Amino acid sequence: MKTLVIYDIEIDKVRVKISELCKDYGLKRIQYSAFFGELNTNRREELRQRIKKALGQTVGRIHFFPICDKDLRLVAQVMNLPEVLIDGADGEASC
Amino acid sequence: MKTLVIYDIEIDKVRVKISELCKDYGLKRIQYSAFFGELNTNRREELRQRIKKALGQTVGRIHFFPICDKDLRLVAQVMNLPEVLIDGADGEASC
Repeated sequence: MKTLVIYDIEIDKVRVKISELCKDYGLKRIQYSAFFGELNTNRREELRQRIKKALGQTVGRIHFFPICDKDLRLVAQVMNLPEVLIDGADGEASC
Repeated sequence: MKTLVIYDIEIDKVRVKISELCKDYGLKRIQYSAFFGELNTNRREELRQRIKKALGQTVGRIHFFPICDKDLRLVAQVMNLPEVLIDGADGEASC
């Protein structure tokens, strides 16, 4: 099932560690502190345990939202990307 | 249906405006840049349009995830709150 992981972590080093764990489990970054991808129940719980261990006593909040296919079809977004991402490098949007 | 709104916004003033819009629509903050609550389809789209207008040309990404009751029961979290939030003011956890 698709899973969304979102987090608020105060300490940079811990935040990076948690983003790396999400990548290790095949999730893709959709926002600075949000990852999304396929995880079955066991893998989701395994990731949760590893994130819990990585967080340790650091102040932070991590939520794991399973997203079923029906809900996935209703996901909406609003997005303005930086111009450098739209056209490559020089800051001029190509559209 | 329950809806999760998450956002990455570069400019503080715009970010605050978007958090205020989420509150205006009855959503509760669950992380610094994540709100959650009940929104029917019309209200969700109305909020999306208002957020789009508030974002304007600012660089940012906002996602709207509907969360059905079945998925809601499977939501998991890991959380360490600051001690001042646990016991009120003096920094000593009460548990």
